[in-house]
Amino acid sequence: MRRPRSAAPAALLIRLDPEGESPLYRQLYTALRDSILEGRLAGGTPLPSSRLLAGELGVSRNTVVLAFDQLAAEGYLEGTARSGTRVARSFPCPGSAGARTERSRPGLDGLSARGRAIASVASPALSRGGSAPRPFRAGVPGLDEFPRALWSRLTSRRWRRPPVLGYGDVSGYTPLRQAIAEYVRAGRGARCVANQVIVVNGSQQGLDLAARVLLDPDDRVWMEEPGYPGARSALMAAGARLVPVPVDAEGLVVDRGRALAPGARMAYVSPSHQFPLGVTMSASRRLDLLRWAAEAGAWVVEDDYDSEFRYDTRPLACLQGMDEEDRVIYVGTFSKTMFPALRLGYLIVPEPLVDAFRAARAAADRHSPTMEQAVLADFIGDGHYARHVRRMRRIYSERQDVLIEAIRKHLAGVLDARLSAAGMHLVAWLPEGMDDEAVSARALAAGVEASALSRYAVDRLNRGGLLLGWAGYQPDDLRGAVSLLAAALR
Amino acid sequence: MRRPRSAAPAALLIRLDPEGESPLYRQLYTALRDSILEGRLAGGTPLPSSRLLAGELGVSRNTVVLAFDQLAAEGYLEGTARSGTRVARSFPCPGSAGARTERSRPGLDGLSARGRAIASVASPALSRGGSAPRPFRAGVPGLDEFPRALWSRLTSRRWRRPPVLGYGDVSGYTPLRQAIAEYVRAGRGARCVANQVIVVNGSQQGLDLAARVLLDPDDRVWMEEPGYPGARSALMAAGARLVPVPVDAEGLVVDRGRALAPGARMAYVSPSHQFPLGVTMSASRRLDLLRWAAEAGAWVVEDDYDSEFRYDTRPLACLQGMDEEDRVIYVGTFSKTMFPALRLGYLIVPEPLVDAFRAARAAADRHSPTMEQAVLADFIGDGHYARHVRRMRRIYSERQDVLIEAIRKHLAGVLDARLSAAGMHLVAWLPEGMDDEAVSARALAAGVEASALSRYAVDRLNRGGLLLGWAGYQPDDLRGAVSLLAAALR
Repeated sequence: MRRPRSAAPAALLIRLDPEGESPLYRQLYTALRDSILEGRLAGGTPLPSSRLLAGELGVSRNTVVLAFDQLAAEGYLEGTARSGTRVARSFPCPGSAGARTERSRPGLDGLSARGRAIASVASPALSRGGSAPRPFRAGVPGLDEFPRALWSRLTSRRWRRPPVLGYGDVSGYTPLRQAIAEYVRAGRGARCVANQVIVVNGSQQGLDLAARVLLDPDDRVWMEEPGYPGARSALMAAGARLVPVPVDAEGLVVDRGRALAPGARMAYVSPSHQFPLGVTMSASRRLDLLRWAAEAGAWVVEDDYDSEFRYDTRPLACLQGMDEEDRVIYVGTFSKTMFPALRLGYLIVPEPLVDAFRAARAAADRHSPTMEQAVLADFIGDGHYARHVRRMRRIYSERQDVLIEAIRKHLAGVLDARLSAAGMHLVAWLPEGMDDEAVSARALAAGVEASALSRYAVDRLNRGGLLLGWAGYQPDDLRGAVSLLAAALR
Repeated sequence: MRRPRSAAPAALLIRLDPEGESPLYRQLYTALRDSILEGRLAGGTPLPSSRLLAGELGVSRNTVVLAFDQLAAEGYLEGTARSGTRVARSFPCPGSAGARTERSRPGLDGLSARGRAIASVASPALSRGGSAPRPFRAGVPGLDEFPRALWSRLTSRRWRRPPVLGYGDVSGYTPLRQAIAEYVRAGRGARCVANQVIVVNGSQQGLDLAARVLLDPDDRVWMEEPGYPGARSALMAAGARLVPVPVDAEGLVVDRGRALAPGARMAYVSPSHQFPLGVTMSASRRLDLLRWAAEAGAWVVEDDYDSEFRYDTRPLACLQGMDEEDRVIYVGTFSKTMFPALRLGYLIVPEPLVDAFRAARAAADRHSPTMEQAVLADFIGDGHYARHVRRMRRIYSERQDVLIEAIRKHLAGVLDARLSAAGMHLVAWLPEGMDDEAVSARALAAGVEASALSRYAVDRLNRGGLLLGWAGYQPDDLRGAVSLLAAALR
């Protein structure tokens, strides 16, 4: 099929009035929506990039992004930052016979508005699941080093004296919740009792429950920019309007958040090890964020996805432990310390919210599988967990050294990679002006997964980079992948 | 704390105008809401029962129930049919100092409107999870007969050659999806390919995803009356307005649905074995339901939760297999054939909806645990599943006979229990005029769980009854529980 030509801004016949009553992004949203509904923009028509359109219209790129986001959330637009934005095919040109036939079949236009919004925010993780990880896919722990035989033995032992195999407690298996509460108090500086712990199916479900319980459609949420796409999906699926707030060397720039959306209902942050940039939020920013939340009556969602792996100092205490006002929802996961296919994580929620989260969890899917929770409780209780995390921290530190060394050897002058003080990935910066999405595509063609940093950003980045996960791969595989990457970029 | 006195209808100062422009339930809703907002009804005040209030106001009970449901969904009221309805504590009397202090703490009033709605529809299952099942709690399979050693052996075998332990495919582990597609085609008469199968964490997640993808807030949904509380929770959490449609000997009365809400967006049905009444939907009703769905562009959610256990004939073909128009979302579960703590079920969705359901699942919690899916795929593939279901069918048939015999012996003239042709529970009818909630409370005090049928109904039932699950309990336990029940009712 021939790719239809991109709609030139002139063809869109958009006139924005800077003196107008409604904000510019809203004017743009309305103009585009009307063009789609009236058939001037047919289904499938590619739109110019937000950058180009912003230039043509003389507005900030953020204005265009906000309008596009809203239209995507309502199902008028589809596509991704990478593939480009186009008019949704489910809004075919009215009046044509083909359009009517299309409409009589269920499909995207049989979805609710919410369903269309959810379909439009599909996470990029969708396309990759199920395949064996290869360098440098991020977020994957060292599965080769997981003590399978031990886990299998603990599972068999548990089956000889199983927990209740009927419906379990909505908040999770009690001994596991107690073990988690102890762990986050001692290891993460959290303040909580076991009753505040809700075991969930990985951090994604924690984010989803927080969004459903605490947000209404159109509520504004501060989102780290660049930031974690899984959080973006969960928040947008709940109908939230995301306000991108930049991240600098001290983490989320709280002052920018206050300026952009002082009345937001929530802030999403990854303070221990920001995803994807890797910075740690400074203490003064943390206090400032908590102060804003208390003043605004807003919630802070703290995603603490890989803080266990810290290489310079002891892991930093979490934000939740500094919160005196019950504003923080803490999200933890076992996907990084154990393995993602286990699908177990946890929330620490303020005491007054426990019942609401339990109700939401019950309506969503009742509870997490009991046997795996029981085996994990044994794994922690018998001391295997602490031992495994310590061991992996050592292994990951060595693997990072291997990666950095290989980059310095083969990619000096192209990739600027510095040791990450924590986590399982690093950002390797590209020379200024080099397009990271193009580089990522060339790497992929050579068999190397290296996501472009700009894939995690809504706004344009000052400098592109590659996200390189090292934790899941053995030294030889890391070296081999660096060679392939170097060849691809030469 | 002293329990505040129930607000007498006179004190509510409600005047309804049958000639008024807005419907009676809306008038009642407005009057109650204003009383709450203006502080005439303080937080925590118990309201009269819907039956009593309906009598006092001279309106149908359904009118009162609709108004209460709406107020509960919006967070003004809280409580359950059993414990009674009261004004939510999070709407304290304005003007009092206590009220302001209350408001400055987060809690129910820090929730979003959606969060309050979710908190107000907490399923009764919440309070029971985690405890060992006892007679006659329904929905629990014969856990004593589950082949634990075999399952444990298959698990160990799998750990020696594990599937991918990283992130898996959003739709589920491919061999399991293939096994499910084969099973529902051969065993349930479904029409589908493996690509339409989405493995979920039990049927509750299937219902939740369907509600989120296909419904917008305020969309109307036909709900079986009486019906399954888990479905009600999922639908109301998505903001749906439930239209109770009666069930007779042929299943959901489609004509009543057409009369009550012809433009509803969805119908929820359990056609193989209606929950809780146990009737099977007739073929003509099925065709009629599908015809309505095609005409109205509505979706039919088919909950096929325990159809594997059919004692008179072969299991009936499912509604999904009769659907020529891609209107049916089929929900299946392994909670009844395997065990609830496994948390595995599946959806069969029309091909055009697959991507939207995948996106919703990814945003919700990515995917179900891979190892348990792989072991289940082995369990099915090695023929254990078919054997286990056959064996349990025989055991359940015997257990039902024991229960019926014991009831005839000890409770003749009190309970009218007839053999159920399918499933794992039956309805034992009480003499007309006897209050089933009172009977259920007396049974519970004697250590016997026997839910009142009216707990599953919004409208008043013509005749009360008890829901007696037999499948999960050994003959002696069933006989003992019947004796206890007989003593309690004497």
